[in-house]
Amino acid sequence: MTAFGRHSDRTISSLATEAAREALTDACIGDAQSQVDIVYYGNVASGLLQGQESVRGQHALHGTELAGVPLINVENACASGSTALNQAWLSVAAGQAEVAVALGAEKLNIGDKNRTFNALASALNQERMDDIVTELGSDGVGSVFMDIYARFAEWYMESSGATPEDFARVAVKNSAHGALNPKAQYGRQLTVEEVLNARKVSGCLTVPMCAPMSDGAAAAVVTTPEFAKRCGASPVRLRGSALSAGRHGAYGELVPATALRAFEMAGADPRDVDIVECHDAASPAELIVLEQLRLCEPGEAPALLRSGATSIGGRLPVNPSGGLQSKGHPLGATGLGQVAEIADQLRGRAGRRQAGSPTLAVAENAGGYIGPDAAVATVTILST
Amino acid sequence: MTAFGRHSDRTISSLATEAAREALTDACIGDAQSQVDIVYYGNVASGLLQGQESVRGQHALHGTELAGVPLINVENACASGSTALNQAWLSVAAGQAEVAVALGAEKLNIGDKNRTFNALASALNQERMDDIVTELGSDGVGSVFMDIYARFAEWYMESSGATPEDFARVAVKNSAHGALNPKAQYGRQLTVEEVLNARKVSGCLTVPMCAPMSDGAAAAVVTTPEFAKRCGASPVRLRGSALSAGRHGAYGELVPATALRAFEMAGADPRDVDIVECHDAASPAELIVLEQLRLCEPGEAPALLRSGATSIGGRLPVNPSGGLQSKGHPLGATGLGQVAEIADQLRGRAGRRQAGSPTLAVAENAGGYIGPDAAVATVTILST
Repeated sequence: MTAFGRHSDRTISSLATEAAREALTDACIGDAQSQVDIVYYGNVASGLLQGQESVRGQHALHGTELAGVPLINVENACASGSTALNQAWLSVAAGQAEVAVALGAEKLNIGDKNRTFNALASALNQERMDDIVTELGSDGVGSVFMDIYARFAEWYMESSGATPEDFARVAVKNSAHGALNPKAQYGRQLTVEEVLNARKVSGCLTVPMCAPMSDGAAAAVVTTPEFAKRCGASPVRLRGSALSAGRHGAYGELVPATALRAFEMAGADPRDVDIVECHDAASPAELIVLEQLRLCEPGEAPALLRSGATSIGGRLPVNPSGGLQSKGHPLGATGLGQVAEIADQLRGRAGRRQAGSPTLAVAENAGGYIGPDAAVATVTILST
Repeated sequence: MTAFGRHSDRTISSLATEAAREALTDACIGDAQSQVDIVYYGNVASGLLQGQESVRGQHALHGTELAGVPLINVENACASGSTALNQAWLSVAAGQAEVAVALGAEKLNIGDKNRTFNALASALNQERMDDIVTELGSDGVGSVFMDIYARFAEWYMESSGATPEDFARVAVKNSAHGALNPKAQYGRQLTVEEVLNARKVSGCLTVPMCAPMSDGAAAAVVTTPEFAKRCGASPVRLRGSALSAGRHGAYGELVPATALRAFEMAGADPRDVDIVECHDAASPAELIVLEQLRLCEPGEAPALLRSGATSIGGRLPVNPSGGLQSKGHPLGATGLGQVAEIADQLRGRAGRRQAGSPTLAVAENAGGYIGPDAAVATVTILST
């Protein structure tokens, strides 16, 4: 993956190219033209932000070794990257491809924040915008998605007794992790006071509790164990990949159902998970999702956090990369950025943020809004 | 599929809903919520034209029986519909889904032709626009894609001896077919003189030689033979589905290579094909593609056309639906509209345009521009 952050001077194709080359090199793919059978490209906002509405991946990868390789553009809002991975996995698992590449790229910093906010809001149903804004009690200004997360936060505080301090602690922990990650957007460790006293975004959410606008790209190569061995690559195992859709009117069933399928597919038990990357687009989501993934009991996540268990060095490091909040959140690349971190952790290559010797990992990625929950969730299980 | 045409008063979700319901009913799927495992949704221009950049399919199908079913948005320009079908096929072939739905929808008529032209042009590489316009000798006004097809026409006339009259004859034949299709955008049979004397679009191409701007949706249900039998459906067989990417600088190899793979997969011979739907976004393309699919020898397509062989009632009916030119070309729905026609023809349900009793059919769909050829091509083989 590229560094996530503000890449004002770079095009999306330059970001995609860097991520593609790094992933191909890591996978010891010397001749992508003949060795890669299919590419899945995830991107969310290039239509509205770069005017590249169509065949985005083919153009982003023009001039790379992947030009001319069959490519399918996929989109599922903030879960586009993991959707690309899910399809790459499917094509290899089906025997249709021996080598598939999943690549996500996004460039949100275009020098006009309002245009970017509008592009983000276009993940909401445009035919139902008035209803949605009313439903959320949103003023429709800035990030409507943070109004959504503020509601989740409120519900979670009611049901679990969590407090805004807990959400601040998530941001603090992730800033500490991000400070160890040279590819993270933010490198400064925050304090609880700083987070709580920062500018309010929506409800109890302050700026450092929310993922920033990021540019970046990330990629993964999916292949068979045999091919990886022949190439001399050092792969991790993709044990399970599940993708589900939210149902209008249902809250809190999406991630649990997706996780159940992914763990079943992997033949793995949530209790054996060593390390987690999850979709902390806002801090409360990290706590909520930990429980939904059954990595702890309902209501237990704040205590787990406070005990230090979810920090690097703890029993169950969560978002060792810094998460979406500190590493950054370039929508279409986010899900693959999570997997890049996990692949590094499982192979002991995470440098200063290496979290012991994990063997089983889970990545959770979500996107869009169907009301009141996300439109899509994916859960990916990886192991050594 | 819905009727293709101008649906000024309808939303894209209303079109998608109609196509979904018709396809589910045709496939005897009584309980889509529990029976359909995955939906692939193809759309090209809703970001720029409807402001629905993200999770388009989930929103288009909100309120239908498919709401809440896992869904992946796919995009590959004018080949988006067949890309959705390709992935639906993959998921069933892989055993990951028992029932998959491929659905394409598009609404291009938004009351502002220039905005639509700009959305279409955004299938070109936005980082290379100046080069592309120079490369094409295009004035960059109106449909740049018709400048591309005008070049194909020129090259084809040089190599085959075809004339503008031949292209006019394609349009005339397809208008005759479209006149028999109640779902076609145009119902009037044209004459060669009329086509030749119509307003010029680019090079030798006149308006009736070019596909119109269309709204519409089409869907296909893909499942196993066993499931179809249990449901009491009357399926056709999806024998082969191949998707390839154009290589920059290479012309004329894309469709032949894709066809080769599809026919191999199907274990079928092009000489046994009874009926064809192909991507006649402009008339010359129909002749070019017939040769590229090896349905006739190089340079032989104009003679085949003039002999009447490619008309309904002829030896090898081509575009019995009216093709993109007469049936219409709602980008993301186009590839699935082709397959809907073929499914009707193979089952003897094509009414006044039934072309005998075909048993083996091919659909070819292409999209985007990588220069000088398309960015993507798909070839689908279906049989009774």
